[in-house]
Amino acid sequence: MTTFYQPNAADGTHFLDEEESRHAVKVLRLQSGNSITVVDGKGNYFQAHLQDNNPKRCSFSVISQHSQPLLPYSIHLAIAPTKNLDRMEWMVEKLTEVGVDSIQFVECDYSERRVLKLQRLYRKAISAMKQSGRALLPVLHEIRPLSSWKALDNTQKFIAHIDDSHHQLLSKVVSPNKSYQVLVGPEGGFSPTEISWATERGFQVVGLGDFRLRTETAGLAACQTLHVINTIHRSE
Amino acid sequence: MTTFYQPNAADGTHFLDEEESRHAVKVLRLQSGNSITVVDGKGNYFQAHLQDNNPKRCSFSVISQHSQPLLPYSIHLAIAPTKNLDRMEWMVEKLTEVGVDSIQFVECDYSERRVLKLQRLYRKAISAMKQSGRALLPVLHEIRPLSSWKALDNTQKFIAHIDDSHHQLLSKVVSPNKSYQVLVGPEGGFSPTEISWATERGFQVVGLGDFRLRTETAGLAACQTLHVINTIHRSE
Repeated sequence: MTTFYQPNAADGTHFLDEEESRHAVKVLRLQSGNSITVVDGKGNYFQAHLQDNNPKRCSFSVISQHSQPLLPYSIHLAIAPTKNLDRMEWMVEKLTEVGVDSIQFVECDYSERRVLKLQRLYRKAISAMKQSGRALLPVLHEIRPLSSWKALDNTQKFIAHIDDSHHQLLSKVVSPNKSYQVLVGPEGGFSPTEISWATERGFQVVGLGDFRLRTETAGLAACQTLHVINTIHRSE
Repeated sequence: MTTFYQPNAADGTHFLDEEESRHAVKVLRLQSGNSITVVDGKGNYFQAHLQDNNPKRCSFSVISQHSQPLLPYSIHLAIAPTKNLDRMEWMVEKLTEVGVDSIQFVECDYSERRVLKLQRLYRKAISAMKQSGRALLPVLHEIRPLSSWKALDNTQKFIAHIDDSHHQLLSKVVSPNKSYQVLVGPEGGFSPTEISWATERGFQVVGLGDFRLRTETAGLAACQTLHVINTIHRSE
């Protein structure tokens, strides 16, 4: 069944926006009475019937509602956007598929990109959410300088970094069922000042493997590692 | 230090091909005597000096040689290529970064792509190998029908599949320090015939998470899961 996005469905907004309405009526040729699924990006699924197949404003009536199960852990990524925007769009799509709670974009000493529009990234995330059968959209935070950013409290904090010292691998040091904050640097890595800044704030320096990963690969690999460690500790 | 690719370096071919030579001389403006690293994609690194900075055929003299450490496990992916080629190119890049030994492309009942040229994929893999500091290139096998393909012997075999039954997660059933063969289907999934075909041949049906992943995401997530499970069992 086709899935649509209406962020305010739980507050009684029971119609699709113009873009979603057009897709429903002009592309999928849905008719009044057809069954649809609506997700709100906040964790809720609505089984609904299309009421009015107006291509600018499709209304629907909600039949039933349920929620995406909450996990006993959460993943928050802070990452320096890459110079190439495609790589960030790709990363947001993949992180939405595998699951991430929030992405904070940060500006670092060696950053090659200091401006980032979230709108296109949100579109990628919405599409990936619908595609993967999720109802929860990652929260994307506007880019800000790393030095003025404050990590979430009560999280296990990691900074992914490669240098000549042999750091522990993330997979070896993570504890299951926690909230995690992972910091990933730009193409040129973190400056020594930034590493000190992070370790003073409780970030543990970790590696993600034996070889260099691109920024966007590192973001995905870190989140995937946290999921794997948590799933092997699941009781079922 | 800049890394170049010469697949026959170990057999005494001590010059770069035209494309690599042009890059060294015209883009990086390297001079005779400059230090370079050459990798052969077969696991060997050569520290070398540039001898003749001919932009069509850079010769080099090897100073020393060492090998990429072998892992106690290996990962072999068999996957149906996606309709969209960019997604396969992206996947080959990312799999090369995180590490995969071979990729067999297979044609499935619901495949949306039945023809695939390996040349562009190899270029992505070579670039990702150099970028990540690896010396080993994944082996890419020409596409063939799933029914005529034979999985590698002595491997732990998994087929990633989502249906109404609740399959075990790959992370829960994999044993460390083995060779693995993972089979990932096209956008439309595997047909019932294919699932039977695979289970009769010793493939265990597994899930990769609680939600649907795109084909290329599933290929990457499966390999990353195998790496994570193996790293947590490492002794150091």
